[in-house]
Amino acid sequence: MAPRKMQIAAAGLGRMGKRHAINFLNRVPRAELVAAFSPDPEELQWAKQHLEPYGVTLYDNYDKMIEQKGLDAVVIGTATSVHAEEAVKAMEKNLHVLCEKPLSTSIAVCQEVVDAAKKHPSLKVMCGFSRRFDDSYRDAYNKMEQGAIGRPVILRSQTCDKHDPSGFFVEYAAWSGGVFVDMAVHDIDLTLWFFGDDVTPKSISAYGITAVQPDLRKYNDYDNAVGIVEFHNGKIAHYYCSRMMAHGQEDVTEIIGTEGKLSVNLNPQSNLVNYYHAGGITREVPPHYWGRFEQAFVKEANEFTDCVLDDTPVPMKLKNAVKAVQIGAWLQEALVSGKQLRFDDIGRRIEPAKL
Amino acid sequence: MAPRKMQIAAAGLGRMGKRHAINFLNRVPRAELVAAFSPDPEELQWAKQHLEPYGVTLYDNYDKMIEQKGLDAVVIGTATSVHAEEAVKAMEKNLHVLCEKPLSTSIAVCQEVVDAAKKHPSLKVMCGFSRRFDDSYRDAYNKMEQGAIGRPVILRSQTCDKHDPSGFFVEYAAWSGGVFVDMAVHDIDLTLWFFGDDVTPKSISAYGITAVQPDLRKYNDYDNAVGIVEFHNGKIAHYYCSRMMAHGQEDVTEIIGTEGKLSVNLNPQSNLVNYYHAGGITREVPPHYWGRFEQAFVKEANEFTDCVLDDTPVPMKLKNAVKAVQIGAWLQEALVSGKQLRFDDIGRRIEPAKL
Amino acid sequence: MAPRKMQIAAAGLGRMGKRHAINFLNRVPRAELVAAFSPDPEELQWAKQHLEPYGVTLYDNYDKMIEQKGLDAVVIGTATSVHAEEAVKAMEKNLHVLCEKPLSTSIAVCQEVVDAAKKHPSLKVMCGFSRRFDDSYRDAYNKMEQGAIGRPVILRSQTCDKHDPSGFFVEYAAWSGGVFVDMAVHDIDLTLWFFGDDVTPKSISAYGITAVQPDLRKYNDYDNAVGIVEFHNGKIAHYYCSRMMAHGQEDVTEIIGTEGKLSVNLNPQSNLVNYYHAGGITREVPPHYWGRFEQAFVKEANEFTDCVLDDTPVPMKLKNAVKAVQIGAWLQEALVSGKQLRFDDIGRRIEPAKL
Amino acid sequence: MAPRKMQIAAAGLGRMGKRHAINFLNRVPRAELVAAFSPDPEELQWAKQHLEPYGVTLYDNYDKMIEQKGLDAVVIGTATSVHAEEAVKAMEKNLHVLCEKPLSTSIAVCQEVVDAAKKHPSLKVMCGFSRRFDDSYRDAYNKMEQGAIGRPVILRSQTCDKHDPSGFFVEYAAWSGGVFVDMAVHDIDLTLWFFGDDVTPKSISAYGITAVQPDLRKYNDYDNAVGIVEFHNGKIAHYYCSRMMAHGQEDVTEIIGTEGKLSVNLNPQSNLVNYYHAGGITREVPPHYWGRFEQAFVKEANEFTDCVLDDTPVPMKLKNAVKAVQIGAWLQEALVSGKQLRFDDIGRRIEPAKL
Repeated sequence: MAPRKMQIAAAGLGRMGKRHAINFLNRVPRAELVAAFSPDPEELQWAKQHLEPYGVTLYDNYDKMIEQKGLDAVVIGTATSVHAEEAVKAMEKNLHVLCEKPLSTSIAVCQEVVDAAKKHPSLKVMCGFSRRFDDSYRDAYNKMEQGAIGRPVILRSQTCDKHDPSGFFVEYAAWSGGVFVDMAVHDIDLTLWFFGDDVTPKSISAYGITAVQPDLRKYNDYDNAVGIVEFHNGKIAHYYCSRMMAHGQEDVTEIIGTEGKLSVNLNPQSNLVNYYHAGGITREVPPHYWGRFEQAFVKEANEFTDCVLDDTPVPMKLKNAVKAVQIGAWLQEALVSGKQLRFDDIGRRIEPAKL
Repeated sequence: MAPRKMQIAAAGLGRMGKRHAINFLNRVPRAELVAAFSPDPEELQWAKQHLEPYGVTLYDNYDKMIEQKGLDAVVIGTATSVHAEEAVKAMEKNLHVLCEKPLSTSIAVCQEVVDAAKKHPSLKVMCGFSRRFDDSYRDAYNKMEQGAIGRPVILRSQTCDKHDPSGFFVEYAAWSGGVFVDMAVHDIDLTLWFFGDDVTPKSISAYGITAVQPDLRKYNDYDNAVGIVEFHNGKIAHYYCSRMMAHGQEDVTEIIGTEGKLSVNLNPQSNLVNYYHAGGITREVPPHYWGRFEQAFVKEANEFTDCVLDDTPVPMKLKNAVKAVQIGAWLQEALVSGKQLRFDDIGRRIEPAKL
Repeated sequence: MAPRKMQIAAAGLGRMGKRHAINFLNRVPRAELVAAFSPDPEELQWAKQHLEPYGVTLYDNYDKMIEQKGLDAVVIGTATSVHAEEAVKAMEKNLHVLCEKPLSTSIAVCQEVVDAAKKHPSLKVMCGFSRRFDDSYRDAYNKMEQGAIGRPVILRSQTCDKHDPSGFFVEYAAWSGGVFVDMAVHDIDLTLWFFGDDVTPKSISAYGITAVQPDLRKYNDYDNAVGIVEFHNGKIAHYYCSRMMAHGQEDVTEIIGTEGKLSVNLNPQSNLVNYYHAGGITREVPPHYWGRFEQAFVKEANEFTDCVLDDTPVPMKLKNAVKAVQIGAWLQEALVSGKQLRFDDIGRRIEPAKL
Repeated sequence: MAPRKMQIAAAGLGRMGKRHAINFLNRVPRAELVAAFSPDPEELQWAKQHLEPYGVTLYDNYDKMIEQKGLDAVVIGTATSVHAEEAVKAMEKNLHVLCEKPLSTSIAVCQEVVDAAKKHPSLKVMCGFSRRFDDSYRDAYNKMEQGAIGRPVILRSQTCDKHDPSGFFVEYAAWSGGVFVDMAVHDIDLTLWFFGDDVTPKSISAYGITAVQPDLRKYNDYDNAVGIVEFHNGKIAHYYCSRMMAHGQEDVTEIIGTEGKLSVNLNPQSNLVNYYHAGGITREVPPHYWGRFEQAFVKEANEFTDCVLDDTPVPMKLKNAVKAVQIGAWLQEALVSGKQLRFDDIGRRIEPAKL
């Protein structure tokens, strides 16, 4: 008899939702995509063509989908605003949950998901931060764990998107939570991974500009921002996010230790081609994060499936996803207010007093 | 109703055979692996665990396997010596064939496969040269086609394996056809791709040494060899094969045109990590070709499947696979004899007279 | 008749002093080193061997040296604490001055030199920031000036020294002014160059740790520090200084504009060698700034000489040297106090009130 | 009293001659350029401006120049055709000689210089191969000597010039000796250095094309050529020369040993700048050899001077310069004839019989 496969439903069929659905359909041998939901007729039309023929039942109602018999899990790739509600509902139906980041841009809402998960300890609930599943970051982490760089103390990380002149990012800023919550949350998550998730901020500072998309100011957002998080244990992380890169996606991380350094993607590249021409030697850069992290998303889906089927712990704690958003929100607050935020050594906000 | 999938059987479950089987099992959405054959009890034992549970019927007899009902195609990953016979038998059963390179180390035998394929024009018969499916080579090819380098005239290509002190390569040399047939055949195939498959050799020269595995001489083989193929149309290819690399797999190609150059993998790397330490800055290199070409094999399997299901031409002509082996064999002859081989302008051997 | 050469005296024969003396002796065709001063008997002993035989008169008294007949100029490479006094004295003797950076770690003292220079408008007075004379920085600057990156808005720059376990940096911290005055002053000077010297800080923040040399705390200094300077015109610079690098000197700058980016020395290297070995591919890194900037110092000496002989403006304004130290001192204040510094739009300190 | 400086005269003030003269004038502290010769009025005009004012006596007659009193040495940078004659005449005047490569394109004439040098054992006679003085090649050589790559067995080296559409190279081919004598002679010299100057060719093969400058055929020359030299001791060198590079000068060497590999300049670069733009990431390449080797020529001049003044052996044997030209001439013969050349184990030509 064939080994049982995990039956999974996909919620949301937008840009990332589609990718999750297709990954679970085609690239996760131990999973079977059996259902998919979207509130959007166009997305459902796409699904009729690309999912339904392969035995995927389609829904325009999330609640109905999660009642489908035999379901083991849901992958949530809907709009951020409904991530949390859908995750909690799924848990109430005893379904495992893989939720696209972030759980929410609100810490309180994030916490509700964590609380719900605590009530269902047998369920695997994971908020996917793709870089945790990237071969290069894992190799860097393993080298660090083996002592290659001594004690890690400084982390520099940047998430830089190719400039999109369409104005998309301005609309997006209305509900994204801002650059530090939307983009740097990856860099913050890397910090919690490489520095340990018990690090406590001591101070947070951030500054930004709107160099190419002044309309972002309407939503208190910026197209370039830098921030520093000082931790209580003698470690510092500093971040740069930008939506202004001419050349493509450039997500770089350096982990600097007392005895060495590790860099990840310091020299971004689309592939292994170099083009030699009268102007010099040129290599291309992936235009989007998918060009950099496609394989990481595939690994994420596979590892989540393994955890569900084998009942092993998920590779990243849910509460870290909250902590990363929390630090991102603080950075965003510092960015917008221009004020330095300070915290005592058990992490309580000292100043400025929170509104 | 679900779209029909291609039903494929895997012949051979050794190093590459296993990989083909697993690819068709898990990574080719439009294909279904339904049968597998190996004459080797250990390999069958592996298959009982990794293939049988997923509905794959196992065979210790190739002839019986290809009689299985409903089969569309066979992927052949057995020992080179039986590639051709198995390919022809499959065609006789009206099965499409994806055959691991080379068809044979004998040109005559290769030609038999081509002749058989001609008799079955409705069948897709492809001899897989993985680099044709690699994103970087394809990008380089497209750039060249778009005129980025003018007219391509010089091609330098090397296939260099990590040194394996186990003695494996010595045994392997007994039947591999020699470094130019076994390794450089990829570089030759790239030459036929980038220069056009109508190129005709004018002269062939090759030289080699046995620097770390003197026992290779027993089989007229070498652990390092260089060769030059001069073509009649004013183009030159030169090759380097080695089984002596300390650092890992290093397969590099440069295509040099009248107005520019393209390089592929000039700076090999396992991933995007750099390690900074007291001795400098180090990056690692994949130890084997799988680390370099895994995704190319996946793409090969998917594209072959598409051709079968959609009845489109396969992306590489079968006769090129013969031509590549033929040139490889001539290079090997030049290597062993120390003599330059010369050809007239319609490709007939002039000197030395063939034995 | 041979063209007149600039007669120059060298003050200070320590690490940098020696290099300046030797450069003017051997590598500046239009200059003649005719005198040298050191208060240190060992350094004078060195000079007896390496300078005196070539016609250089030695002094253990600075005042006497600058009275030597025929002198045109002095290059000052003594301890920072006497730079300013010596520079002013030289001007009073009507001598041109090339002074090693910084003029002083005290802004007031720096200003005295600027004031003195104003009184001697015919004299060339330059405080050398070596990176201004480096080919790579100049190429980057020219590309920016030609519009290659649009409007520059973000600058990231780091000055990172190889870890020196001898304890030298601890003693040095007693009088160096701190990492931001001693090291980042180069990065700040680059900021003034690439952003324009009229930029006005809006806020300054900085944080540091003592990861490998805890004794630095005695002198309010750090072995790793990061800082952000936000400017009033919508530009941001962020800096990283470290004395903890395992691999060598790593001075990197990125200038990010609205339409492109320029990086300088993102991949540091001692030379053009790569070493391939069982652990991967390694390149070495210069251990010290001299390995990176030797040719820049030679160019600096030559260009200073040209300015003196041809009566052309020096390539960098003296007041910038003061401004760079000022910003460095503010960063150091922010670092030590943990407080954000704020400035109004004409550059007046708002908060915290200066002590 | 000042240490005595070497008094040197410069013969030839063309492209390279000027550079040698200026180097000895300005960049060799222990040397004094006291005389210069050119048969060319324009060059003499240049010298009147750039050399005469600094005490350099000018000559339009070589014989007269070398009679100038007090001369120690001559640097010969005239046309290749007169190198040998001038070198021998200088020796007869008891002058040390630094001669630009090659001594001659004729082996017989080269040998005359070697014979003359043998008669004057107290004289330093060096034929400069600039790469021997390049920091990167020296670092690679030292690493090899320290055993970093085991036993070196394969050397790949290329000398590739930027395409010059002016037609200069066609005229130049009339007397340059051909690509292997003119360009690859550097790669051959590196071979003699890294493999040892006692290596004996076993076979020589070479092939070429005229892709962009068909007129080269008039002079039996090519704009792209590849060649293989097989040595009797189990080592192989292969070469590529081109005058067709779109991007600039690209002189690359790889030394491959039984336990590792060293590469020199595999990624050519003008400087440390990378430019990030909508088309990717670009770095520039030096357009000419001077951009790559300027510092090597300075070091060559200084080391030659040290040898003369300190009476130490010159760093490269004169007979190697002959051997390099000899191998280059054989490669050129193989290239033009299309025939493989073979040699017995004491280096005597076996076939084809020499004309």
